[in-house]
Amino acid sequence: MSRSCERLQEFHDQISTDLKRTVKFWVENSHDLEKDGFFNCLGKDGKVYDTTKNTWLQGRQIWTYSTLIRHVPEVFGTEKDKILDFVEKSAKFLIYKVKDRETNRCPFSTTPTGLAIKYQRSIYTEIFFTMAMIELYSVTNNDLYKEEGLKMLDKIIYWTQEDDTELGRTVLPGTTPIQTLAVPMVVLSLGLLPLPEDRMTKYREIEEKCVKDIMKHIQRNGKVILENVSPDGTELPGSIGRLMNPGHAIECGWFLLEYAKKSGNSELKQIALDKFIMGAFESGWDAKHQGLFYFLDVDGWSPTQLEWDMKLWWPHTEALIAFLMAYDQTQDKKYLDLFEKVFDYCYQHFVDKENGEWFGYLNRQGDVTHTFKGGPWKGCFHVPRCLMMCQLILKKLLKKETDT
Amino acid sequence: MSRSCERLQEFHDQISTDLKRTVKFWVENSHDLEKDGFFNCLGKDGKVYDTTKNTWLQGRQIWTYSTLIRHVPEVFGTEKDKILDFVEKSAKFLIYKVKDRETNRCPFSTTPTGLAIKYQRSIYTEIFFTMAMIELYSVTNNDLYKEEGLKMLDKIIYWTQEDDTELGRTVLPGTTPIQTLAVPMVVLSLGLLPLPEDRMTKYREIEEKCVKDIMKHIQRNGKVILENVSPDGTELPGSIGRLMNPGHAIECGWFLLEYAKKSGNSELKQIALDKFIMGAFESGWDAKHQGLFYFLDVDGWSPTQLEWDMKLWWPHTEALIAFLMAYDQTQDKKYLDLFEKVFDYCYQHFVDKENGEWFGYLNRQGDVTHTFKGGPWKGCFHVPRCLMMCQLILKKLLKKETDT
Repeated sequence: MSRSCERLQEFHDQISTDLKRTVKFWVENSHDLEKDGFFNCLGKDGKVYDTTKNTWLQGRQIWTYSTLIRHVPEVFGTEKDKILDFVEKSAKFLIYKVKDRETNRCPFSTTPTGLAIKYQRSIYTEIFFTMAMIELYSVTNNDLYKEEGLKMLDKIIYWTQEDDTELGRTVLPGTTPIQTLAVPMVVLSLGLLPLPEDRMTKYREIEEKCVKDIMKHIQRNGKVILENVSPDGTELPGSIGRLMNPGHAIECGWFLLEYAKKSGNSELKQIALDKFIMGAFESGWDAKHQGLFYFLDVDGWSPTQLEWDMKLWWPHTEALIAFLMAYDQTQDKKYLDLFEKVFDYCYQHFVDKENGEWFGYLNRQGDVTHTFKGGPWKGCFHVPRCLMMCQLILKKLLKKETDT
Repeated sequence: MSRSCERLQEFHDQISTDLKRTVKFWVENSHDLEKDGFFNCLGKDGKVYDTTKNTWLQGRQIWTYSTLIRHVPEVFGTEKDKILDFVEKSAKFLIYKVKDRETNRCPFSTTPTGLAIKYQRSIYTEIFFTMAMIELYSVTNNDLYKEEGLKMLDKIIYWTQEDDTELGRTVLPGTTPIQTLAVPMVVLSLGLLPLPEDRMTKYREIEEKCVKDIMKHIQRNGKVILENVSPDGTELPGSIGRLMNPGHAIECGWFLLEYAKKSGNSELKQIALDKFIMGAFESGWDAKHQGLFYFLDVDGWSPTQLEWDMKLWWPHTEALIAFLMAYDQTQDKKYLDLFEKVFDYCYQHFVDKENGEWFGYLNRQGDVTHTFKGGPWKGCFHVPRCLMMCQLILKKLLKKETDT
């Protein structure tokens, strides 16, 4: 028996404590009690250093709180009802203040009152809006959120499967059509939401299409996952075509594992395990300094992204989920050993036991380079989602141990 | 007499050798002899790793070659006429293939044949187009380049002083009007071009307006240069308002020094020296690991840019120019001592004596993180411009020494 098996209880306890500490951090520091919604630019100890609201993170925090209420309500203690009340207010802030009622689009960033500062030519704000609404519906049964969520889901299906003109992208004479891994991934992930049953059945077709699109990113004779490919699944020339984002591929891996389980597709399960989770981890792990690189070039050129060799929090949270889920689904110890490896790296480098939440950005050597806990791209999402999911799986594994 | 004074000859010789080596690197590796223009994504030894052409760098390389031909033609040796011929071909590539004849706008990036891939909502490609044309006109006397350069100059004046609608920026309800330091800086720098005399006189008014705008970036009781301010010169809230870019302020400093000299404005000269060059250097220099930080937050928060603590080549080339120019204009040894400090850092960390050119990106500790010599943002510009300008000033200083 490898050592990692003996540490299940320790993993569970550390993670449970961390989840409580992390939730406390966001509850105490991020709520805009005056205008609703959340401040997402928070310093090390929670102080607001910028009042801009980033819509990705507004939607994600509503989703996170709702899913915590659904699965581990105890993390909010006696505050649960008060929190849910604030989540509803924040959802209404998104619906009535942030979303453009005419176009159904959500700006990327807004003022504290919800006035649009900037739009992205992509669907991510709308994805997180949908996740927020559907998850909140499942804990409130309030039809407003269901309607808002499903209406946006329909728009996302339209933009991604039929016509993306409304996203404002201009096709120029030299533009090469690109399929990013992100789009089919996030659209697939919407199928993990507690959708109404009739919609779930209807969504299966979209999920299958997404899986087919995701498979196009397996390149070089099945050896690597590339972040961008042509819509017909061939490798693109230049840096953009050679780009790998190991954390993203690993996250995609556990999305696929979930879907394979749901759809009973054992072949897909194996692809998720071998190509997306193990393959990306093996190429993405820094043998010299530990931790997952942010970007890599499949041919070993320097990626043009300046931050390529940094260690970001989210590839590591996704790796924790992926390895624990893989272990749970296969009972293969190698996955638990890798979970242990990532766990130890995270708890040595990212976790702030004093103030809660994780630092988000380390240099290649593993030193914290950015002291904030929340920023334009980091909110209340990856860390609590990871801790909640891992806690639930660990609880199940520990129960199985006791039962046998 | 401080040691830096004894090293003038050494500085001159190192820099002259480096300039020759750098020019050789670009001449041997970047020319697209088939379609004209330049490949700007070049690996350590000059191998092309991406054939995308970035228009900033196309214009900049034409400017650089032209200015080298004007001031130090010997760096091209016997190849000079052949090079000039290729520069003209590349200028025509920009005029007839890259520029949109209808809108007068230049895309940010193109295919090797010049088909537009992407546009930026800013004026930088057009700035470098103008620099290319006017500088090339001065070494060819070909009216085509003069006309193209002046036509674009008029558009830039229109976009920056009257109406920027054509740049495609959308003003949203939450958008705060922002003045970036970059815009008045680059528009001012066009006055350093060898413009026809009547245009030079006419341009004086624009230059004065730019200087006035640049002064708005001096904030916090004259203590710091902020990268973004409101159009009326007050500090903006949040991270964007607190942002400092030391290398940019230093580069702006030598632009101002040049203009102060040209316009005989001794008060402006002092501001350039104290606030822009010395002030930005003192706040931007990393006392722990040496080198200039890329970004800083004036209140000591972590900048939200992931690359804030990296050491980029161009802030250092601009510091070399600024300190040597400051020494030349003031005879104050403190500037030469700082030139020496930056010189030693550069020649220990950035310079590639084996292959020519400089590495562009180091981590905070000073290790090379990106091995390429050219990328989407790094072409044939900052290094050769710096080496040429420093060589000319050093030659002058050495001559003065011999004469006395």
